[in-house]
Amino acid sequence: MSRGNLFNQIPSDLSEEVFETLAQSSEVKIERIISNGQASPKSGWYDQEKDEWVIVLKGFATISFENGSVVELEEGDYLNIPARMKHRVIRTSAKPGTIWLAVHY
Amino acid sequence: MSRGNLFNQIPSDLSEEVFETLAQSSEVKIERIISNGQASPKSGWYDQEKDEWVIVLKGFATISFENGSVVELEEGDYLNIPARMKHRVIRTSAKPGTIWLAVHY
Repeated sequence: MSRGNLFNQIPSDLSEEVFETLAQSSEVKIERIISNGQASPKSGWYDQEKDEWVIVLKGFATISFENGSVVELEEGDYLNIPARMKHRVIRTSAKPGTIWLAVHY
Repeated sequence: MSRGNLFNQIPSDLSEEVFETLAQSSEVKIERIISNGQASPKSGWYDQEKDEWVIVLKGFATISFENGSVVELEEGDYLNIPARMKHRVIRTSAKPGTIWLAVHY
């Protein structure tokens, strides 16, 4: 049994987003993401092979989609992003940052 | 895109634990569980075919394992329970209850 706390052991250097795999199999990856005011590069989209279920558990974030829709996420808000649905993060909270949990499946 | 908030739409009747599937595929099920002081039947064990990654996001809980170990979970604590590792929930918080997120994979 591996265990931990999602809200502890926050790295002191948050100049870049921090991605940490909490559990995985051949089909699934469960990941903690910590953002601190970062946004995706304006020129780039996430274009993922797998579905992604994501929840904001501390802070807030805004995700925009290639189709023009924009989704605001606050604490507890979750979203299922189908594979190949291009998106980017246009805003995250800073000090304290945004703690996400993502399941890629 | 399906969306929601993990901490909203809490059913008023919590006399039984409430299980709600938030996303799933052939390999994975992501589930919200709300407990309100319930515990597993003393005679029964959860004996699952899949690995389960579980996190307590509101309240607290105690899980015991057939091998005698006991794990206390508070807010943000997560645990990976391998398939076939028999366990049961021996305590959850009441009023407000325990909100879990479980990924069966």
